[in-house]
Amino acid sequence: MRTQVGIVGAGPAGLMLSHLLHLHGIESVVLECRSREYVEHRVRAGVLEQGSVDLLRRAGVGERLQREGMRHEGIELRFDGESHRVPMTELTGRAITVYGQQEVVKDLIAARLAAGGSILFEAEAVRLAGLDSDSPVIHFRRDGRDEQLECDFVAGCDGFHGVSRGAVPDGVLRTYERTYPFAWLGVLAAAPPAVDELVYANHERGFALYSLRSPEISRLYLQVAPDEDIAAWPDERIWAELRTRLETVAGWSLNEGPILEKSITPMRSFVVEPMQWERLFLAGDAVHIVPPTGAKGMNLALADVALLGDAFAAWYAQHRTDLLEDYSAAALRRVWRAQHFSWWMTSMLHRLEKDDPYETKLQAATLRYVVASPAYATSLAENYVGLPEV
Amino acid sequence: MRTQVGIVGAGPAGLMLSHLLHLHGIESVVLECRSREYVEHRVRAGVLEQGSVDLLRRAGVGERLQREGMRHEGIELRFDGESHRVPMTELTGRAITVYGQQEVVKDLIAARLAAGGSILFEAEAVRLAGLDSDSPVIHFRRDGRDEQLECDFVAGCDGFHGVSRGAVPDGVLRTYERTYPFAWLGVLAAAPPAVDELVYANHERGFALYSLRSPEISRLYLQVAPDEDIAAWPDERIWAELRTRLETVAGWSLNEGPILEKSITPMRSFVVEPMQWERLFLAGDAVHIVPPTGAKGMNLALADVALLGDAFAAWYAQHRTDLLEDYSAAALRRVWRAQHFSWWMTSMLHRLEKDDPYETKLQAATLRYVVASPAYATSLAENYVGLPEV
Repeated sequence: MRTQVGIVGAGPAGLMLSHLLHLHGIESVVLECRSREYVEHRVRAGVLEQGSVDLLRRAGVGERLQREGMRHEGIELRFDGESHRVPMTELTGRAITVYGQQEVVKDLIAARLAAGGSILFEAEAVRLAGLDSDSPVIHFRRDGRDEQLECDFVAGCDGFHGVSRGAVPDGVLRTYERTYPFAWLGVLAAAPPAVDELVYANHERGFALYSLRSPEISRLYLQVAPDEDIAAWPDERIWAELRTRLETVAGWSLNEGPILEKSITPMRSFVVEPMQWERLFLAGDAVHIVPPTGAKGMNLALADVALLGDAFAAWYAQHRTDLLEDYSAAALRRVWRAQHFSWWMTSMLHRLEKDDPYETKLQAATLRYVVASPAYATSLAENYVGLPEV
Repeated sequence: MRTQVGIVGAGPAGLMLSHLLHLHGIESVVLECRSREYVEHRVRAGVLEQGSVDLLRRAGVGERLQREGMRHEGIELRFDGESHRVPMTELTGRAITVYGQQEVVKDLIAARLAAGGSILFEAEAVRLAGLDSDSPVIHFRRDGRDEQLECDFVAGCDGFHGVSRGAVPDGVLRTYERTYPFAWLGVLAAAPPAVDELVYANHERGFALYSLRSPEISRLYLQVAPDEDIAAWPDERIWAELRTRLETVAGWSLNEGPILEKSITPMRSFVVEPMQWERLFLAGDAVHIVPPTGAKGMNLALADVALLGDAFAAWYAQHRTDLLEDYSAAALRRVWRAQHFSWWMTSMLHRLEKDDPYETKLQAATLRYVVASPAYATSLAENYVGLPEV
């Protein structure tokens, strides 16, 4: 099998890249180790920056997003028994849109298949070869058989646990990382959200986030210990803890309903540099992870492949190499901006260490400053809705 | 000996409080363990916020400050071989004034003595008694004799190592603190500054600050190890290290000259709450220390006693207790704002830990963001020039 760009991974990054290449008349094949059913129902991120929304619309895959996505013009910060709104759109002119990552994935798969695009599900990339030649090869397994995909370039969009990053020889990549002494317990509940906008709560028992996916579906998170056992959290305990951390404002209560899904996500900051080696271009979670507090993961993945789509287009149309050569540096500027913002939001909102009262006071001072200073609130808002240029 | 308000310490806080009380017709006596010569030549901070300048002028002690102080409308951030100006006045409408702390002290001593005020030098407070009565007593030693100062209230303005804070019974005060894995080596040099504004440099060998005290006197600092021995730093080594860390911009060089003074200052964040117990009111370094990076120490001390002056005035004139009761909470709002800002500036500009490449990358992202985002630059600027309200 042969194509122009071989793409490993059918998440938002891989699918969007395939779609953008198609718009430029460039062929690609997407290899995905999971089933279509699995990737279309995997619950992940749910907040799109203005720039991501614009990208999806310009690329012609924003029709359902425009209809079903919920535009939010602010977020709420809740601490010390009070709630404060950060009016993001008033401060920046931009907004976010709540739309589940799996919905983006569904829309992109539908668009690729409608255009005759090639996505091979349950096709597991096992090895990348010839990356330093003009004709790299992706070795993969499908239906119990070994197959090969020859291509001009490989795009590694296969996430943190994927095979792509590991194909780069030892000593080329440098890793930057930080772990946090907590995780998020996330639930999806069949309950109409009691809020119009996301509520980020700093509580003495830990962080909580009240978010939503639709007028009928709430998405809620609790800070828990990093080694927490999900079995220790029956639904009733989850609701009780959510009430304790979120019902701190007089007269306000959350809405409960059947829990459809629950899981624990570790928190990590992780960057690999550079994001390219020879004919391998890495994008999304394969090369950078942020803690979810800033809602940046999916947005970074889309921003990566927007750059990569333009770079491949310039190469195929005009034999230009400059954009491909500049890809890593250009993408990393946005990646580090998002790393800093995500670390900052995380540090401000979670209980970080036991028995560090100075840290707790600093958090309180930071939160009070965010809600008192238009300048500082704008710095939160402009990162949250996404900086157009970094 | 008897007075209305007994003040321990003739630094900016104690002297300014004595002066403000005098303006309200309230008597005070200042006890200072050092000599007048010593306190008038002790080299410390040198940056006054707009609010501090306004306070000194309104109180009638700003005449020489207005003549000799140097108004600065920006600072420079130097990193990655480039210098970037933060235009503070353009962003906030306010400015800072460079004027040495010992000059403020000289002006205040002159004003107090001219008005017949009582400052007892080389009078060491050894014990505070009766703080929970209507008539507290400061026991002090002068000329080898034990003496007593009876008063209505005691103001503890005697710095981190003073006796006042220790007079509060165990269990009343709560301490919040953080130490940093570095110190500042500071020099005063008889060299015309090569800069018009302060230059804060983040360099891979550590932080450096180029500041000034007059058109003929430079004040320069180097980040060093916390246990650094000043004897290991002959003048030539200091200049060589300053050149390495500061001469990173093409065509720019610093001016050298005889080093008049050098010393090493540890870095600490420290707050004690509350700032009052019964008839004892604590102010300045006695209850809070910031690392000098944000230039907040002297400004906080002046802001504390501005509140305290009004509170005593309301008590003596109208028997009002509300301002005295509110003093600690009101002062602490500003203290924690300055704590957060000073910690942030310190974290952004110093090498914090060996072998934490993620931290170094976060710093670089923060610095790039400060110089790229007007909102974030404004948050630096409004803290640096001093927030009018906190």
